[in-house]
Amino acid sequence: MGGDQGPDEIVAGALEAATPGIVPVLFGPAGLDTGGLEVVEAPDAIGMDEKPVEAVRAKPRSSLVAACRAVGEGQAAAVVSAGNTGATLAACLFKIRRLPEVDRPAIAVVVPSRQGPTVLVDAGANADARPEHLVQFAEMGAIFAEEVLEISRPQVRLLSIGEEPEKGNQLTLEAHQLLAQSGLRFGGNVEARVLLEGGAGDVLVTDGFTGNICLKLLEGTIKSLLDALRDEIYASTRGKVGGLLIRPAARHLRERLDPDTHGGAYLLGLRGIAVIAHGNSSRRAIANAIRLAARGVEHRLVERLSERLRTATPSVLASARSRPPSPQAR
Amino acid sequence: MGGDQGPDEIVAGALEAATPGIVPVLFGPAGLDTGGLEVVEAPDAIGMDEKPVEAVRAKPRSSLVAACRAVGEGQAAAVVSAGNTGATLAACLFKIRRLPEVDRPAIAVVVPSRQGPTVLVDAGANADARPEHLVQFAEMGAIFAEEVLEISRPQVRLLSIGEEPEKGNQLTLEAHQLLAQSGLRFGGNVEARVLLEGGAGDVLVTDGFTGNICLKLLEGTIKSLLDALRDEIYASTRGKVGGLLIRPAARHLRERLDPDTHGGAYLLGLRGIAVIAHGNSSRRAIANAIRLAARGVEHRLVERLSERLRTATPSVLASARSRPPSPQAR
Repeated sequence: MGGDQGPDEIVAGALEAATPGIVPVLFGPAGLDTGGLEVVEAPDAIGMDEKPVEAVRAKPRSSLVAACRAVGEGQAAAVVSAGNTGATLAACLFKIRRLPEVDRPAIAVVVPSRQGPTVLVDAGANADARPEHLVQFAEMGAIFAEEVLEISRPQVRLLSIGEEPEKGNQLTLEAHQLLAQSGLRFGGNVEARVLLEGGAGDVLVTDGFTGNICLKLLEGTIKSLLDALRDEIYASTRGKVGGLLIRPAARHLRERLDPDTHGGAYLLGLRGIAVIAHGNSSRRAIANAIRLAARGVEHRLVERLSERLRTATPSVLASARSRPPSPQAR
Repeated sequence: MGGDQGPDEIVAGALEAATPGIVPVLFGPAGLDTGGLEVVEAPDAIGMDEKPVEAVRAKPRSSLVAACRAVGEGQAAAVVSAGNTGATLAACLFKIRRLPEVDRPAIAVVVPSRQGPTVLVDAGANADARPEHLVQFAEMGAIFAEEVLEISRPQVRLLSIGEEPEKGNQLTLEAHQLLAQSGLRFGGNVEARVLLEGGAGDVLVTDGFTGNICLKLLEGTIKSLLDALRDEIYASTRGKVGGLLIRPAARHLRERLDPDTHGGAYLLGLRGIAVIAHGNSSRRAIANAIRLAARGVEHRLVERLSERLRTATPSVLASARSRPPSPQAR
């Protein structure tokens, strides 16, 4: 029931993704036409503007909460939602729960740079974070990059306002020191200007506020720029002809950069797989989000995260768990 | 002596900007060929990678420090620098000094959205800021928009990760409340996705870390995207012909979005005018930065800021000055 385009688009995406190896189960009202896919009745729905925690508590029979519960109880291998992001996060935390090794689950998004994928983490789960959390985001992002994207020894970089270790805010200055000692392949600070071009590392670490702003700015800028170019081109006859001729090239670029191509973001650090799709996901985006979730299941992402976090950088993680809340980031 | 392109490009830009009403004075080594412009001897230079505060203290005879001193002592009306941004900031604070009404000077950049200019403030002067500082950034940005860009009753918005007042990090949650009570024309939170399209308000307020990251991400994404499109177009013969035909349209767009067109960023809150140009500024960018500085002088920006801040929102500003440092943003 989530998403801006209504249940029909979600159902169509699920049908598109269904294969002998991927069996989508839909959660929604009884009468839903699912084209033959299994439907689990969930009579309630959480709106895009409802307050996340309150809505999840008040609506245990919503499609979102019921789907997360199915993952938490082992009836499904992964959940995909195009609904209210905050509510999805809350429902995942309550119903799927954190891995015991993880302090703060984080959102990982694959940014398609010109030189290859960069995993941006945290892209919005934790608006305020402590330096130790950023180290764990880096750990999780690196494991994700290695296990799911098959990048060996992924390089981790820290998003900041200059490449030098002493440039940044208090959070990044402290996180830089911890990352340098973490045992990760740390490439130092990097500026946001290289995010789309490439050079931001295999894993780019930041707090969820900054990460979410970057993600939205990136998406919005790509869309505005391509729209503005189209308008400029179609303002003249000469341009119109040129526009027809460059259409395949422009389509190729749009394809690489379209968020629908990637389908969604992983919520890392849970006891199950959760993929958060865009609110305005098309059927194609939903199908890709389901495939993305399936890839995490195939690669045993949850088990690998749990195993590797248990053994990785014990000193840093232990200090992250035992240290009292730091005053500068509540 | 600042900037990546060497003094020749700076001199050429100064010559281009010189008119009977704008008299550039250059600061640099004695032998500099300035094409007839006045040169004040400053035998030292601060490199792009030097530590700002240390360098400014150690090099009082550098071109940067000498130029700022000239503004502080009333021998020049404004300073323009394409040098080390941190050092420029430090030299301005030491030699031009803050207005007594201002707690933290901030960098204001005019972002050319499709619907008109948006003043992004702070674009990098304060990596950590308190909620009260954001209110003062908003005040200064609004006065700048009104006095220099001639926007009447500018709308102020707060950069966050959702439009609802309860979405954001601790800094924006508290700043939202203060802005709502400030007497400014506050339009609430806004997401970064609309920055280039328009809709982010006449003044977009954020801390200097987030603002600097947004500015660099915006510039980097525009450049990468246009470069990628060119590569896609020139990969086929058909595309090459199309590329020739759309060239005027693409040039028009590049012109609007090129940082060189705007020339630089204002450092607001000083007792004089300072414009920070890009490190890689061309002569055209330098000329535009000088014109931007001259516009601030013509509009009596410093006097207007001082007058209006003295009378504006006394309660909020008084609390900003009397309140002890907040624990969450040192």
